[in-house]
Amino acid sequence: MTPKWIAADWGTSNARFWAIGGDGSLLGERTSDKGMGTLDATEFEGVLAEVCGDWLDTANTVVACGMVGSRQGWVEAPYQTTPCAVCPAKMVTAPVKRAGLTVHVIPGIRQMEPADVMRGEETQIAGFLAENPGWDGVICMPGTHTKWVHVSADEVISFQTCMSGELFALLTQHSVLRHSIADTGWDDAAFHDAMSQTLSRPEGLAGRLFSIRAAQLVNDTDTVTLRARVSGLLIGAELAATKPYWLGRDIALVGADAVSMPYVAGLKAQGVTVVRADAKDMTLAGIKAAHALLET
Amino acid sequence: MTPKWIAADWGTSNARFWAIGGDGSLLGERTSDKGMGTLDATEFEGVLAEVCGDWLDTANTVVACGMVGSRQGWVEAPYQTTPCAVCPAKMVTAPVKRAGLTVHVIPGIRQMEPADVMRGEETQIAGFLAENPGWDGVICMPGTHTKWVHVSADEVISFQTCMSGELFALLTQHSVLRHSIADTGWDDAAFHDAMSQTLSRPEGLAGRLFSIRAAQLVNDTDTVTLRARVSGLLIGAELAATKPYWLGRDIALVGADAVSMPYVAGLKAQGVTVVRADAKDMTLAGIKAAHALLET
Repeated sequence: MTPKWIAADWGTSNARFWAIGGDGSLLGERTSDKGMGTLDATEFEGVLAEVCGDWLDTANTVVACGMVGSRQGWVEAPYQTTPCAVCPAKMVTAPVKRAGLTVHVIPGIRQMEPADVMRGEETQIAGFLAENPGWDGVICMPGTHTKWVHVSADEVISFQTCMSGELFALLTQHSVLRHSIADTGWDDAAFHDAMSQTLSRPEGLAGRLFSIRAAQLVNDTDTVTLRARVSGLLIGAELAATKPYWLGRDIALVGADAVSMPYVAGLKAQGVTVVRADAKDMTLAGIKAAHALLET
Repeated sequence: MTPKWIAADWGTSNARFWAIGGDGSLLGERTSDKGMGTLDATEFEGVLAEVCGDWLDTANTVVACGMVGSRQGWVEAPYQTTPCAVCPAKMVTAPVKRAGLTVHVIPGIRQMEPADVMRGEETQIAGFLAENPGWDGVICMPGTHTKWVHVSADEVISFQTCMSGELFALLTQHSVLRHSIADTGWDDAAFHDAMSQTLSRPEGLAGRLFSIRAAQLVNDTDTVTLRARVSGLLIGAELAATKPYWLGRDIALVGADAVSMPYVAGLKAQGVTVVRADAKDMTLAGIKAAHALLET
């Protein structure tokens, strides 16, 4: 079978491409490190041809999500505004030179108050809904910028982004705490203890971070323990901030295992059960749902 | 008049030296960028001779505070443990080759639970107490790592370090928010609005940081406004964390103007009046108080 169209998840740092057959079957998958952050608007088509040139012999349509649709991307796909349909209807076509090729870009979603934005996650949500029709609840997508998204009646009602992932990276790699934190390893008890502290008393976060450093100097606390403690403090604070999202709701966690683990542990400790789904699978399912819209 | 002794504030990044006459008068002041972080234990004496060689013709005593007394410094001056006397009695002498020279290093203070440490600030506290005998209350020392210190009956009772200064630097210079935050400038209303939010609802901090980025993308909010908003969110969270320190207490703020400003504004908005003192002046006064102990 030959590729009929190409699905693309084109983010800031990386891009992933899938070749799809006429019957929807997956024929191939390729990645590139030519993310949006390294490209001018005029350079995207060249990267596509470079990575997927042979697929383009038969595929004449590309459907892409992610930062490729930002103002600094290939073409700006203006945000939809909440509340809005999950499945992206307002795709934008990117300028291309190759005859017969059409590139559709899925728009992100914005929220006016409190201000928030997503680009790429809306496609994972569409994929999750495609595989779980009629699902109602909150989808949590852990990552550098974790999204908590309230979905109801196939609409994104509201969402909230938390930067705990980026804060963890900054604190463990660039702050004074880096001297006291192991690069890898985990301590479940320390994680849960710290998480309980900031979840029950979120006002303590600002005061508890430096004590990570002090605990090593004063008590010679193990650096693996301190790594789990930083994670716990941040996840506890995030769960305190997002309580209106997860309390008493069905929760779906869409993300890779490593980044999802502290969220699963934290929510489980609060008595919340979550269903899991893989982020890459949901992205592809969402792009397929968007492609299906083109054919109707 | 010739220098009788030398006062030194030797931190991680910089060092400052003062020549003091026999009657306690200040005869000169010099700085160096040879901070503790760049020196091996054996190199401190050479830097002292390089920067203050002529003073050492007549001065035979040095009294130093700061990271010079850490494990990685010239000589480790073991922490005193709270509660402890403000004026440092347990100075340690550093190894020197020069005949007739004695170098005294002021110890830092540690707290076992919650774990916390200071090195250098104890000397500013001693200076403030020397100039304000019998003072009882909380001394706040704004900086990269702000210290809140409860002082009573000439003792340090307890203290709390907050990393808001370092977090502000990380967020504005290294996080995704850097794209949305001006390098300088201030917006008083935005600062107070954000500070009120996290002071009254500290659990919101984790969710409000990313909205700084989103506010620029969605509402095109001015980057100077967003700079003040980040500061307000962090100071509000710190004031929530340190409420037991400042509520209903006399507060002394020891710090430079730029770094003290948001704390003064924040505390004032809570109806707290503060007295101010300059950090450099308090350091020198504290070293003088330590030197006076040597002569008794």
